[in-house]
Amino acid sequence: MKKYYYKCFDCGKTYDKDEIEKNLIYLCPSCGMIEKNQPLRGVLLIEYDYESIQKKYKRKEFLKLQPGRFWQYNYLWPLDLKNPSISSLLRNDIEKLSLPSNCLLKYSFNGNNFFVLDDTRNPTLSFKDRASSLVALKAKELGIKEIAAASTGNAGSSLAGICARLGLKSMIFVPKLIPEAKRIQIQSYGAEIYLVDGDYDLAFDTCLEISSEKKLYNRNTGYNPLTIEGKKSAAYDIYMTTKGKMPDLIFVPTGDGVVLSGLYKGLWELKELGWIEKLPKLIAVQAEGSNAVVRYMKDQKFEYMPAKSIADSISAGAPRCLYMTYDAIIKTKGEAIQVSDNEILEAQKFVAQNYGILIEPSSSSTFAAYKKYISLNKLRDQTALLLFTGNGLKDTSALKSWNPNIEPSSPKLLKEKLLNK
Amino acid sequence: MKKYYYKCFDCGKTYDKDEIEKNLIYLCPSCGMIEKNQPLRGVLLIEYDYESIQKKYKRKEFLKLQPGRFWQYNYLWPLDLKNPSISSLLRNDIEKLSLPSNCLLKYSFNGNNFFVLDDTRNPTLSFKDRASSLVALKAKELGIKEIAAASTGNAGSSLAGICARLGLKSMIFVPKLIPEAKRIQIQSYGAEIYLVDGDYDLAFDTCLEISSEKKLYNRNTGYNPLTIEGKKSAAYDIYMTTKGKMPDLIFVPTGDGVVLSGLYKGLWELKELGWIEKLPKLIAVQAEGSNAVVRYMKDQKFEYMPAKSIADSISAGAPRCLYMTYDAIIKTKGEAIQVSDNEILEAQKFVAQNYGILIEPSSSSTFAAYKKYISLNKLRDQTALLLFTGNGLKDTSALKSWNPNIEPSSPKLLKEKLLNK
Repeated sequence: MKKYYYKCFDCGKTYDKDEIEKNLIYLCPSCGMIEKNQPLRGVLLIEYDYESIQKKYKRKEFLKLQPGRFWQYNYLWPLDLKNPSISSLLRNDIEKLSLPSNCLLKYSFNGNNFFVLDDTRNPTLSFKDRASSLVALKAKELGIKEIAAASTGNAGSSLAGICARLGLKSMIFVPKLIPEAKRIQIQSYGAEIYLVDGDYDLAFDTCLEISSEKKLYNRNTGYNPLTIEGKKSAAYDIYMTTKGKMPDLIFVPTGDGVVLSGLYKGLWELKELGWIEKLPKLIAVQAEGSNAVVRYMKDQKFEYMPAKSIADSISAGAPRCLYMTYDAIIKTKGEAIQVSDNEILEAQKFVAQNYGILIEPSSSSTFAAYKKYISLNKLRDQTALLLFTGNGLKDTSALKSWNPNIEPSSPKLLKEKLLNK
Repeated sequence: MKKYYYKCFDCGKTYDKDEIEKNLIYLCPSCGMIEKNQPLRGVLLIEYDYESIQKKYKRKEFLKLQPGRFWQYNYLWPLDLKNPSISSLLRNDIEKLSLPSNCLLKYSFNGNNFFVLDDTRNPTLSFKDRASSLVALKAKELGIKEIAAASTGNAGSSLAGICARLGLKSMIFVPKLIPEAKRIQIQSYGAEIYLVDGDYDLAFDTCLEISSEKKLYNRNTGYNPLTIEGKKSAAYDIYMTTKGKMPDLIFVPTGDGVVLSGLYKGLWELKELGWIEKLPKLIAVQAEGSNAVVRYMKDQKFEYMPAKSIADSISAGAPRCLYMTYDAIIKTKGEAIQVSDNEILEAQKFVAQNYGILIEPSSSSTFAAYKKYISLNKLRDQTALLLFTGNGLKDTSALKSWNPNIEPSSPKLLKEKLLNK
């Protein structure tokens, strides 16, 4: 029996892993659908034989693993570690994909302790590396030498960086208005980069068409099921680092909803295995100018609205994984919260100055939402965890917006001023 | 007996730790000297009772420690971990200063394997965190709430970030021509920042005067002995990660010479303890436009020349730790190598595209020197290690210089081009 199979989130049909992977199929062959400015239909999930795993592997042993090293739990990871192109990487080369093991730490705000899962020091300084690493290794397993992706910036630089680490080629399609710093990162890693004369949606479609004709492997976020599967490792890392004492609430930056969907997948598996009893509530955090999930929670209706927010990494007019995100929020008794760009920038400043972590606006949205949650008196005695998914240095323009310019002074003037002379 | 004492590198006089630390003394009270555009005289080093340590602690146990966590070897670290303001930090808060434990990995170039100590994912993404963390904790131990430093950028943002992590204040003096991105980082962490209307030397002097009058703790690099002592942890981390099999050569980016001096201090201690037999050769790598060490190696004469190089982090006309650096190179039978800005940028590109690591120019200088070393047929069968001391995202202007601008294209045009249609 194969280790895992694919299952459609929408229609529930299951598929043999080889049928999907070897034919470079990404969405459900039966009901999958991509429409302009619409969430995806027929997103595939991976399922394992949880009953056998439960018999063979013990919670206690799993908890002893070191966080940030997915190759340690091969039985819950959709890779064939015995495939020569993968096994040859072990152990030195695969370490190049590992995340810091000290990624989860406790902080305090107004007397409330909270946890942070800090993904800002990953190989390319973002959470996206969790997905890119899995996708890149799958390409190696399949014998494909080049991976394509559409990206607003972070997914592209992550894929480009991970590919460079593994000796693969990458082809990245970005919208023409990509911030310069993010373009430079993608280029620096040696990716073939194309500026599409339009928005992210157009880059997404162009990328799909070209990668499919050229038989490249595709890493479009939410579309390739491994982008969700890769991100589930965050749930495991939280589980290992807290020694199984999961927080009550997890605040997740939410644009396309793939981070939240991936996190939920990992949590759901831990419950399926009987390794946790209760699912933490997932709090989807959105920017006011990109709040499709918040709106969908109200009436389960999706209406496309162009996204506009300083938090570019969670700006998505049509979240690709909207339905899965909704499902995860409902199943965990969570909710969706929106915060303003102003609150996001204030949070970015507060986190930098009080905790010494430079994060990008999408990440600081979680702190803004946490503050809001407290001020609404909803926290009570629940423990909270915030995901910090991207380093603030990936694009310093947001930091620049709240740091005034300074004029030079002579030493004489400085001494007068500072020493009251 | 006290755990450690201070010893002057130049005149050899020794001092009780409290005499130095409680009086905020930095250079040797007997021969210390700061002169404009001259290396420092009377730099202090810390020494321990190596004989007792040797009896009490075993190499085998030391090798089992996890790299990146200096509080594990308290007996070789000049902090009083029992001091309430430090002990209260353990264990959660001090973890916020820890470096990734997977920092040493093997790479390959033209059939030659080499190691990299990758400090680009430290808390503020640079090697400077090794020094800033120790200095900041010493300030806590001494009950000082504010630390001052002069900086061209990285040391300042490191100190500002580490201080924010520990609830300390920082005051940073920078030369007026500091790159904007580095200024923004320092400001973002909430440091009080002053642009001195002049160069780094003037910022250095201004900082000294003001911090001394205001009784702030001073972290000027090379001047505060803990900046050297903090950086010795790199030697220990290499030792732990290689399981004691030290490389034959270590390529060290060298401006002020404090990284090299700190590294040497750690290596010297390992030898003093009998834990290694031979010191690795230290190769000081300099930019052609900032090559005071290279020149000094020839005739042991120092002549000030203004520094000019794309590698701003190793630009130093008057290396503060010149004499100690010279001594370390001689004692390890190393040498000093210079590389051009062009070679540095080429190396930055090569490392990004082939190893997937974005490093700043000062770091890529080591790869350029390694290439040069090979082409001169000097490597033979020696194993080499390169220090990567700063993340390329700390200032993307160098990356920008070798990445061309791109024009947007329509999807139609892209398909024609990429699919030959």
